[in-house]
Amino acid sequence: MKYGIAIFPSKKLQDLANSYRKRYDPHYALIPPHLTLKYPFEADEDEIKKIADTLHQIAKKYDPFPLKVTKISSFQPVNNVIYLKVESTETLKNLHNDLHSGELGGEPEYMFVPHITIGQKLSNGELADVYSSLRMLDVTHEETIDRFHLLYQLENGSWTVYETFRLGKE
Amino acid sequence: MKYGIAIFPSKKLQDLANSYRKRYDPHYALIPPHLTLKYPFEADEDEIKKIADTLHQIAKKYDPFPLKVTKISSFQPVNNVIYLKVESTETLKNLHNDLHSGELGGEPEYMFVPHITIGQKLSNGELADVYSSLRMLDVTHEETIDRFHLLYQLENGSWTVYETFRLGKE
Repeated sequence: MKYGIAIFPSKKLQDLANSYRKRYDPHYALIPPHLTLKYPFEADEDEIKKIADTLHQIAKKYDPFPLKVTKISSFQPVNNVIYLKVESTETLKNLHNDLHSGELGGEPEYMFVPHITIGQKLSNGELADVYSSLRMLDVTHEETIDRFHLLYQLENGSWTVYETFRLGKE
Repeated sequence: MKYGIAIFPSKKLQDLANSYRKRYDPHYALIPPHLTLKYPFEADEDEIKKIADTLHQIAKKYDPFPLKVTKISSFQPVNNVIYLKVESTETLKNLHNDLHSGELGGEPEYMFVPHITIGQKLSNGELADVYSSLRMLDVTHEETIDRFHLLYQLENGSWTVYETFRLGKE
C-alpha cells in the first residue's frame, strides 16, 4: 500500500488554497490542501504499524510551531507547479529529516522546499498566464501547526487519513 | 466550523465502495467511503479541543471490534440512498451512544443504522434501476476496526481529518 505524510493547514488556509486548486490542480478532489512532509512510499500493514509508533515518538519531540506563508511561487521550469511558499524553519527541516531517517530512511526525492500546491500539471502557456496573475497577490499568513497526518492512497488515487500525530507531550 | 465523526473501513472495502460511489454518489470526491458515527455538528476551536480530549477517553473504553458487511440495502422510500449494510453490534451501538452523550449530547438525527453509503441523491427511477442490479450482489465481508476519526468540513463541502482516535489502550 502507498503511504504519505502531510500537514493539513487550518481550514482558512485550505479554503484559500482550494479557491485556486479548483481551477488549477487536477488533484483537487483527491486530497485536501496540504504540505507534503514525505512523498509516497510503499509499506505493508505490519510495517505501517511500526512506522505509526515511530511517528508518535517523533511527534513528541516537537512543540507546535508557526507556519508562515510568504508568497505564491512556482517550481518552473523544473516542474509546472504553482504553490503557496511556506517559510523554511529549523523545526520544519528537522521534522522532515526525522521522517527520512532510521526505518523511515531513504533520501527524499526532492530537496525540501516547504509548500502548499495550488496548481499543477499546467501547460507552459497556462502556467505562465496563471502565475503572472497570481504571483503579485498578497497571501502572507501565519498560523500554528500542532499535528501531522499519515495517509494511504486508494485505487482511485484519492487519499484517506490513517492516523494523526499531535506534536508535543499529550 | 462543522465537524463529523466517522469510521474509514479498510482500503479494500473503500475501493469496493468507491467502484459504486464513482457512478452513484455525488459526494464521491468530498470524502472517502465511511461509516458515519455522528452527523455534522457545529463547534468552535475551543470546544473542539475539549471534544477531541473526550473522544480520546471514549476510544480507550473500546477494544478493536469486527465490522461485518452483510449486503447491499436501501433507505428508500425515506431516503434515496443505497448502502453497504453493516451488522449492528452492541459495540457499535454503545460507541454511537457515547458519541451522543454528555457534552457530545443531542439526540441523533436518525435512528442508528450502521452503513457505508455507495449511492445517494438518485432519482426514484435511477434508484430502482441501480438497486435492482446491485441488491443481489454478494458483498459479505469482515474486518477489524481499530480507530475512528474526527473531521471538519471545508467551504467546498469536502472533509479534512482533524484527528484519529485509536481504540483501546495505547
